[in-house]
Amino acid sequence: MTSAQSGGRGGLFLTFEGIDGSGKSTQARMLHAALCERGHDAILTREPGGSPGAEEIRSLVLEGDPDRWSAETELLLFTAARRDHLERTILPALSAGQIVICDRFADSTRMYQGLSRGDLRAKVDQLHSLMIGHEPDLTLLIDMDPDTGLGRALSRKGHEERFEDFGPDLQRRMRAGFLALAREFAPRFRVIDGARDIDSVAAEVREIVLDHLA
Amino acid sequence: MTSAQSGGRGGLFLTFEGIDGSGKSTQARMLHAALCERGHDAILTREPGGSPGAEEIRSLVLEGDPDRWSAETELLLFTAARRDHLERTILPALSAGQIVICDRFADSTRMYQGLSRGDLRAKVDQLHSLMIGHEPDLTLLIDMDPDTGLGRALSRKGHEERFEDFGPDLQRRMRAGFLALAREFAPRFRVIDGARDIDSVAAEVREIVLDHLA
Repeated sequence: MTSAQSGGRGGLFLTFEGIDGSGKSTQARMLHAALCERGHDAILTREPGGSPGAEEIRSLVLEGDPDRWSAETELLLFTAARRDHLERTILPALSAGQIVICDRFADSTRMYQGLSRGDLRAKVDQLHSLMIGHEPDLTLLIDMDPDTGLGRALSRKGHEERFEDFGPDLQRRMRAGFLALAREFAPRFRVIDGARDIDSVAAEVREIVLDHLA
Repeated sequence: MTSAQSGGRGGLFLTFEGIDGSGKSTQARMLHAALCERGHDAILTREPGGSPGAEEIRSLVLEGDPDRWSAETELLLFTAARRDHLERTILPALSAGQIVICDRFADSTRMYQGLSRGDLRAKVDQLHSLMIGHEPDLTLLIDMDPDTGLGRALSRKGHEERFEDFGPDLQRRMRAGFLALAREFAPRFRVIDGARDIDSVAAEVREIVLDHLA
């Protein structure tokens, strides 16, 4: 398992993780804007998706009957999408010295697939090690009380994605799952209190990333 | 790695392999008809595809620019399709005591992906072991001189599939690759001379399978 940075490439690979409604996508966008304003060469991407092929796989997974794929098949499809995203978007940008800001990455798979079927976590890790083999340099976990997060997610218009079709109890287990990952991969995780106003959260995110760059 | 039979299910899992134009699809259909005529409960399926989800993944892989997916991403997509096919079509049929006749299975992946990039064969095996874990009870390799096989494939109308867009030299390497797999997995492989008239080949296939059933 090589981090994107230690692999000899330039650039910096940053990921945002968190439960639905935690504000991570907003924070990813705000960080991207702030870095660009300061003259950094940064790109903003997301998973599942982030490259033309991966977006097609995303549609295949997320559209239609939620039970159309088993957890194992879904895991393989997400890994195929991640491999494409990594090859076509993330690694070329890092090689060019860019900062890559990615809204969700492998930690989301560890959490969601692992949580949906406890026995799958080992397979998730083995598959990641076999076919992906890269970790972010820094992962920003926007942590938030699930009741707050769920309220935000439900208040959005057109939230058509399956990831958000979860009740509050599952959201609580997800929060705990992300916090457990933050302990497991402590060196690259930063846990940020997302239950404050957006600008305060953004200021902390910016400070952490600028510190890391300096 | 459990065979479908030794896994405690009923049924029999038969696969056909061979280079393009070897006549394996014709032989699979003829075997299916012969077994049904004799009162056996047999289904005929194929890869990539063989279940509604796997057929959608097949379209995603085989349509469009041949270079749109890397060998690794393609391997993950084929494995996702195989997992769906296994769960939704093959294993339920075997559990119901049926004979499953499948036109191509994991050996095709070992051969094609392994041949296209020699360093991939180990990944193919690890991924199979991790996410598929089933082997056929019996694999019928329809072996044929590539020049004969290629002639047959090219003479077909509408051969739109990428698997057939190969020159004679690659076809020769593929034949050698399948014969090497037949040695590697000797207990379940039967090599059949496909360069005879169709009915003679079909008679030998039928004899082998009826012997195996008896």
